[in-house]
Amino acid sequence: MDIRDLCWLVKPVIDSAIKTYQIDTDSVSPMIDTLKRELEELFPMITETSENASIHMQEVNDSELGEEGYRIEKVDCRYRISAQRPCGLLYGLLGLHRILVTGRTDSFPVTSIPSQAIRMINHWDNFDGSVERGYAGGSIFFDGKFREDYGLVRQYARLLASVGINAVSINNVNVKGKAVFLINKRMLADVKRIADIFTAYGIKLFLSVNFAAAMKVGGLHTADPLDASVQKFWTHIVEVIYSVIPEFGGFLVKADSEGESGPFTYNRTHADGANMLACALEPFHGILIWRCFVYNCNQNWWDRETDRAKAAYDIFCELDGKFKDNVILQIKNGPIDFQIREPVSPLLGALRRTNQILEFQITQEYTGQQVDLCYLVPMFKEVLDFKTGYEKDLSVKEILPAFSPSKKLSGIAAVSNVGMDDNWTGSKLAQLNLYGYGRLCWDNDLSSEEIATDWIRQTFYLSKESEKQLRNIVLTSRDTYEDYTVPLSVGFMCRPGIHYGVDIDGYEYDRWGTYHYADRDGIGRDRTITSGTGFTRQYSDKWYKIYENVNTCPDELLLFFHHVPYTYRLQSGETVIQHIYNTHFRGVEKVKEYIAVWDELKDELDEETYQNGKERFKRQLENAMNWKEAINTYFYRKSGISDEAGRMIHC
Amino acid sequence: MDIRDLCWLVKPVIDSAIKTYQIDTDSVSPMIDTLKRELEELFPMITETSENASIHMQEVNDSELGEEGYRIEKVDCRYRISAQRPCGLLYGLLGLHRILVTGRTDSFPVTSIPSQAIRMINHWDNFDGSVERGYAGGSIFFDGKFREDYGLVRQYARLLASVGINAVSINNVNVKGKAVFLINKRMLADVKRIADIFTAYGIKLFLSVNFAAAMKVGGLHTADPLDASVQKFWTHIVEVIYSVIPEFGGFLVKADSEGESGPFTYNRTHADGANMLACALEPFHGILIWRCFVYNCNQNWWDRETDRAKAAYDIFCELDGKFKDNVILQIKNGPIDFQIREPVSPLLGALRRTNQILEFQITQEYTGQQVDLCYLVPMFKEVLDFKTGYEKDLSVKEILPAFSPSKKLSGIAAVSNVGMDDNWTGSKLAQLNLYGYGRLCWDNDLSSEEIATDWIRQTFYLSKESEKQLRNIVLTSRDTYEDYTVPLSVGFMCRPGIHYGVDIDGYEYDRWGTYHYADRDGIGRDRTITSGTGFTRQYSDKWYKIYENVNTCPDELLLFFHHVPYTYRLQSGETVIQHIYNTHFRGVEKVKEYIAVWDELKDELDEETYQNGKERFKRQLENAMNWKEAINTYFYRKSGISDEAGRMIHC
Repeated sequence: MDIRDLCWLVKPVIDSAIKTYQIDTDSVSPMIDTLKRELEELFPMITETSENASIHMQEVNDSELGEEGYRIEKVDCRYRISAQRPCGLLYGLLGLHRILVTGRTDSFPVTSIPSQAIRMINHWDNFDGSVERGYAGGSIFFDGKFREDYGLVRQYARLLASVGINAVSINNVNVKGKAVFLINKRMLADVKRIADIFTAYGIKLFLSVNFAAAMKVGGLHTADPLDASVQKFWTHIVEVIYSVIPEFGGFLVKADSEGESGPFTYNRTHADGANMLACALEPFHGILIWRCFVYNCNQNWWDRETDRAKAAYDIFCELDGKFKDNVILQIKNGPIDFQIREPVSPLLGALRRTNQILEFQITQEYTGQQVDLCYLVPMFKEVLDFKTGYEKDLSVKEILPAFSPSKKLSGIAAVSNVGMDDNWTGSKLAQLNLYGYGRLCWDNDLSSEEIATDWIRQTFYLSKESEKQLRNIVLTSRDTYEDYTVPLSVGFMCRPGIHYGVDIDGYEYDRWGTYHYADRDGIGRDRTITSGTGFTRQYSDKWYKIYENVNTCPDELLLFFHHVPYTYRLQSGETVIQHIYNTHFRGVEKVKEYIAVWDELKDELDEETYQNGKERFKRQLENAMNWKEAINTYFYRKSGISDEAGRMIHC
Repeated sequence: MDIRDLCWLVKPVIDSAIKTYQIDTDSVSPMIDTLKRELEELFPMITETSENASIHMQEVNDSELGEEGYRIEKVDCRYRISAQRPCGLLYGLLGLHRILVTGRTDSFPVTSIPSQAIRMINHWDNFDGSVERGYAGGSIFFDGKFREDYGLVRQYARLLASVGINAVSINNVNVKGKAVFLINKRMLADVKRIADIFTAYGIKLFLSVNFAAAMKVGGLHTADPLDASVQKFWTHIVEVIYSVIPEFGGFLVKADSEGESGPFTYNRTHADGANMLACALEPFHGILIWRCFVYNCNQNWWDRETDRAKAAYDIFCELDGKFKDNVILQIKNGPIDFQIREPVSPLLGALRRTNQILEFQITQEYTGQQVDLCYLVPMFKEVLDFKTGYEKDLSVKEILPAFSPSKKLSGIAAVSNVGMDDNWTGSKLAQLNLYGYGRLCWDNDLSSEEIATDWIRQTFYLSKESEKQLRNIVLTSRDTYEDYTVPLSVGFMCRPGIHYGVDIDGYEYDRWGTYHYADRDGIGRDRTITSGTGFTRQYSDKWYKIYENVNTCPDELLLFFHHVPYTYRLQSGETVIQHIYNTHFRGVEKVKEYIAVWDELKDELDEETYQNGKERFKRQLENAMNWKEAINTYFYRKSGISDEAGRMIHC
């Protein structure tokens, strides 16, 4: 077995009072072995016994707990974990470990039931070993072949299960090269070995498939979803998959998007496309997850009618109710693409008769690439807590199960941030985003602070004061990143292609539909219905009114919805131009503070962690300064307006 | 032998009157065989005879002709070619072929002596087969190993000799990977085979070497040029090279430039570095060519003191006279980097006691990448004809031999534009730049029009009217490219890295020293001594005064030397902003005209040529339109000034 970073599972519970365990179950499941292994790893002093157990795991009949929930009771040093199924026992055991390590021992009895049914990780791993938008080394699954490091996969499965993840797609949604053939019998044997490991940790394995596989794999002349030969192809493929991997979860599909073919190629709807694949999966209870990230990526930059933000709603709203029961639409959190600040996607709440998964991005594509610190849970929470304005003003976390015809077929997915780097995530501190994502999916009501605190306690050995300092860095990091990068949600001022570093006009004269329209007078995209693209009208009445009116539109979303002069006064009291200057000066100062704090923590951190953070913070400061200088100068040159505080802005 | 495009040697002379030839020579040279082969290829009806020759080649004693010059006399259909050496005879024979094919038969007797001693091509070919800034496919020499296609190399040598090239460096000046080891005996055997082919066409072979080879190849701990072990390393290397390749030309070196190490690494001067290598080459009459492309490529963009344009002069002027006799400095035509419009490098004329080569770029890095048509000879001529203001106002073409201590060690070099594409240059029309470069190097007084006419006649079968149309396209193409791309010599508004396509701020907030400083009021870099970087003072008094004064600075160089308001009125009468609009609208219109003309030529062109041009022009139009839209909008947004003619500018 590999000896990579154990992340937040690094601290076994060594408590002499917990000496024995007992498992009461009638289930025949690989998870029973998993329970025993985890007991050995997380509670190393413990041994098996039939009586007087100190950890007693018991399958019970208690529908309140559902399929995955658990209850932990404590009497003295005797812990009793109850669940309806083995996976609930595993979550309970891992939960007990966390509670003991974090010292939250006044919380017993604990009853814990996941907020969302599907809690998924999407890998964008290519078969050649590269990872699209990966910032932590190569793929943990592939390196031109199957990597076959099953110890590593098991470690990964433990980490995921310990934060409640129950589904993983292992290959990139842009399915290319040999990955197109993962659905072939010859390659499925290797997929099966990965699936077995995940299954033992309660995790379903999914594959991303290429919509044109009927041609590329099947040799057909078409991938038209209404063509009988195409349907037959997929029926056969799915039969083979389930004969090899009975626990197989299903498919994830990116179609008609950024160069991928899809139903539009054949003048079919996305319902036609998704339903065809869902039909093939249905007999095996397989799931078809269909991404809503569909837009015209070849527009003229001077075409102000076309608004990429509107695309997903325009395409998918009218299909609501037309998808088969085992189809789930996967909807990105925002209408554009994982920017540091976007409004919530208007699809969330608008779809009522379609199973839904909300998609986040843990890998920090536009948010610092695991060089810059950016704790994403506060952003994830904003989205989950966003009150849609539909029916009792339900929030996104509520509509996911409520508006999905099958609550079991709803939930949350996110793009993975792990790779072959020794610490999994490139930056040690970026482990928190994986951890936090999982914890938040399981319990949507956890606070960002609670999650950060638990992670720090599970990962490091810090004094109370140092824990507070580190938590403070982490909790402010998203605001800091926003401060020194893109102002007021205008988006996409980054270097094309790589999406790291500043390039204010990098996407301004290009085909991607992401424009700031900065001129000598003002900036922002008018998306009102009165004078702009009308995107505001895709929201519920409540949000439409708020966003449409420049005076009520929240400051932080102003330039996403409105084009305003640099002298426009925000609700904060600052002008837009002064806000730009202030945030950029402030952002750099914050990073300097982080570096000072990190140096103070040095003696309490292991050398590797300290050096890793030091190196990342150094690069973050360089990046922050580059952004600050470029943004301030760019807007000074355009507006001609000086900083009120008279700070240095290069002309 | 390969059957690639024969370019301008495609038309053999089939004249029944020229039936026989005779070669009178005492020389023992592989060039005698070359003469015979070329007679067979270019005059296929001809046979060898001892009397009554119709082409009579004769070595003569006539010092007026120099080492390479020739004379052709004609009596009826009997041609007599005289030269002092076999290479002169070859140039004469190739010259005769050209004269007959182009129909310039009223020019006899012809005496032709090259204007410049060294007429060189630099390949930027990497050993892995890629070509840095290559737009015509992979390297003709390498593909991870030696390609060993000697038929191809011979074809290439013919093409070069036919336009008078007498020196070639075969590998990239950024010497990396296995190319570092080309100087090792094992690899020299393959270099030798290429050298033999070139030698038979009067061409000297050079290698680019890595300044740190003493470490990388020799295993030493230093590459300090004053270190005895380093000197010994190079002495040995050179001995080995000449033992394998007695005709070896010498080394070409890029040091202390864009990441390459050099003398500065050891606190030595560039004279120290160059002289050390020259010492090793001296016993074998080898030449050391040292590039002056040295500047700080890591500057802060807000540092207005540092001016990349000044770097070469600052570094090399004070070393004038300190180089060994067999050192040549190679000086780029402009002070920055091969832009579509730059002033002439101030080093040209300022150096008086140093051998000099002027460096051009035939490969169209910043000038359209062999997609966009851009005939470069007009630009080359501007540089050669530039009257420096030094001593009798000598022009650059005059100072090259006049200011070099050894006239034989002066001349012109240029970066190659050929690759493995069937037509050598990607665009068929880009062959003209290779042809024209060679012709112009041989005879600096040829006009751009004469060269284009000859090339068209040698390459195509066009009617007089069509010839005129094509020539007109070609002759206006550089102005057209300038029109729709970068205004008024401000430079570098292209996409970073690839250098094709528009990205106005692409280099503005970066480390490369290439800034336009456009703000809401004006644009341009102030390089005056009064208020700017003082670069103007690097010129002779004549040009200093002209460039320093905004009223006398030529329009086309205005923004290179001055920062002016958009409303500044040019000598042309237009304002800067109106000039920007006018040129960009005009440039696109010109490309549309080219396309129309090309279509008219269709019936007179072979299908492959027509399709190649059609495809390139289509891409050129797209590129031109992208430039026009982006530039016009960018400056409209910044200046707020509308087009006087009311044409469509997107806001």
